Amino acid sequence: MERITIIGLGLIGGSLGLALKAARLKDIEVVGYDKDTLASVDARRRGAVDKSEPILHRAVRDAGLVIIATPIMAIPAVMEEIAGELRENCVVTDTASTKTIVTDWARQLLPPTVSFVGGHPMAGKETAGIANAEATLFAAKPYCIVPAADASEGAVRAVAAIVQLIGARPFFIDAEEHDRYVAAVSHLPLILSTALFTLVRGSPAWPELSALASSGFRDVTRLASTDPALSHDICLTNRDSVLHWLDRLVEELSRYRELLQQEQEEPLFESFAKAQLERDNYLTAPPSRPERYPEVPSGSDQLLSLLVGERLVRRFKDIGKVLAERDEASLRQRRTGLGPGRKAPKRPHKP
Amino acid sequence: MERITIIGLGLIGGSLGLALKAARLKDIEVVGYDKDTLASVDARRRGAVDKSEPILHRAVRDAGLVIIATPIMAIPAVMEEIAGELRENCVVTDTASTKTIVTDWARQLLPPTVSFVGGHPMAGKETAGIANAEATLFAAKPYCIVPAADASEGAVRAVAAIVQLIGARPFFIDAEEHDRYVAAVSHLPLILSTALFTLVRGSPAWPELSALASSGFRDVTRLASTDPALSHDICLTNRDSVLHWLDRLVEELSRYRELLQQEQEEPLFESFAKAQLERDNYLTAPPSRPERYPEVPSGSDQLLSLLVGERLVRRFKDIGKVLAERDEASLRQRRTGLGPGRKAPKRPHKP
Repeated sequence: MERITIIGLGLIGGSLGLALKAARLKDIEVVGYDKDTLASVDARRRGAVDKSEPILHRAVRDAGLVIIATPIMAIPAVMEEIAGELRENCVVTDTASTKTIVTDWARQLLPPTVSFVGGHPMAGKETAGIANAEATLFAAKPYCIVPAADASEGAVRAVAAIVQLIGARPFFIDAEEHDRYVAAVSHLPLILSTALFTLVRGSPAWPELSALASSGFRDVTRLASTDPALSHDICLTNRDSVLHWLDRLVEELSRYRELLQQEQEEPLFESFAKAQLERDNYLTAPPSRPERYPEVPSGSDQLLSLLVGERLVRRFKDIGKVLAERDEASLRQRRTGLGPGRKAPKRPHKP
Repeated sequence: MERITIIGLGLIGGSLGLALKAARLKDIEVVGYDKDTLASVDARRRGAVDKSEPILHRAVRDAGLVIIATPIMAIPAVMEEIAGELRENCVVTDTASTKTIVTDWARQLLPPTVSFVGGHPMAGKETAGIANAEATLFAAKPYCIVPAADASEGAVRAVAAIVQLIGARPFFIDAEEHDRYVAAVSHLPLILSTALFTLVRGSPAWPELSALASSGFRDVTRLASTDPALSHDICLTNRDSVLHWLDRLVEELSRYRELLQQEQEEPLFESFAKAQLERDNYLTAPPSRPERYPEVPSGSDQLLSLLVGERLVRRFKDIGKVLAERDEASLRQRRTGLGPGRKAPKRPHKP
């Protein structure tokens, strides 16, 4: 029995557990830890973990893969506590929204005998906690993989295999780049959404405003319902990038303000028209980025065995098999229009 | 046969037509006009209107109710063209996103023999045109009713009846108040959403950014896909209110910027926590606003007959009957758990 340990059983940790369990891997045990005993019990009850372990350092003992899914600011304490218990060649990953600081912590706090490969699923909901966890939370979503400089290639492949297994799209990126980019597409919208809600909510006319508000207001303010601990931690651990984008947004708003103030009808119309056109293009045909996903040839078995020992190599080969079968089934489905379990008839019968 | 005329058969005009037709009113004919012949044909084909009329002033001849659902900036020309054809006591309404300017136009351009009652459905989609029209677009959404100072009470009741008939919630409000409020909950989110999309789209890292962007970015930028003609017209016809809220939003963003810059952890956390709590409250238990909806006692028949003549009074009584039946059916459904068409058995049978 090989062990994967998830530390932190909230929305993300719980959903990872559910997604891993949904993949029905044989001989892999998912162990969970949460400092909140109720969350641990709930995760077990919902089938997100096979068992929960109330003592943190015991939860990671003998694990081949450890996923830290706690709030960002809790990560250093977790790393300190587990460092002495991690088995040699253990792969450690996380799910935090910022990566530079977490990669630094890993370098300082984890033993050189393990590999750290940071992770960040670009998925989430504005509702937190194990009660809202879903096996399909990561389906078709980008999942950033941010290997530490000294991470073994096998460790990177192992994390990539897990990412594919839960249905997400591996997105390899370095930590600084990651933090600048997510500041634009994730952290800035979060602050914007919150500021808009706070402003309108603070108006004395709120009873009328809220009665008038429709789906537009609800959608644009959705991220204001984000777990405040997450928003707070993001702001503090990615401060400079967030400030950079925040300043640029205020400049952009000022540009619109000027056009409006001066009633510059044509440039105003052009701005709106360009945004509409480009957003529609983005939705229907997003620009493609080279996937930069390292191929996993069978020769990598050797690397994997260096990393996790023969038994876990067998498990990751199982993962590879599951993935290949799934891909083949979906390809067959696309080709024949039939469900994955049915084959196309060889010859058409006359009715 | 009584006539309701819809001028402008885009998303809103088309959806109004579909919603009216879905109510299956007897002896009421819905006539449509659009300067784009293809839109007229399509509206007819989709069943949004009973017939389309290619000449605008002919389309409104003998109509008891005229709904102007064109872009805002087209309204004055429409009013000028139809003014001479409107029958006495005709009720004219519109669907524009700003109301002060439209009310002014109505006072200047429509004859004193008709009643203008402005309207604004707080519903929409980021996809425009008759092809995206839906009978249920207005279901349970607020629908602002903004009577001109000299509108007859019967005209107000007639528009309120139509609003209820299409499943929306009548929301009585005066024009200036309306424009200030929708600037906050509709026009500001629109500009914000567009500015955010424009900023991120303009980055040289757009291929990476768009690949990383997830549902949060998509939701917050949804309104950037709004019809640019609509956005542009809103900005120009509600300029002062939009500028007011835009300035206040930049102040609010600056407040977040300061907290972030100075790493004021506690106030930052408190701001996020307060926003989350209040938004959750807003979603689960929105503050209630007194509905201010005038009751329609049977004595109002007299008012209605003054307004629209006996034949249309009969139609609006039909509307009242349809509404009453619908309410009763849904009440019965809630009480008994049975569908609207089935009655609860009078006595329970033993199995």
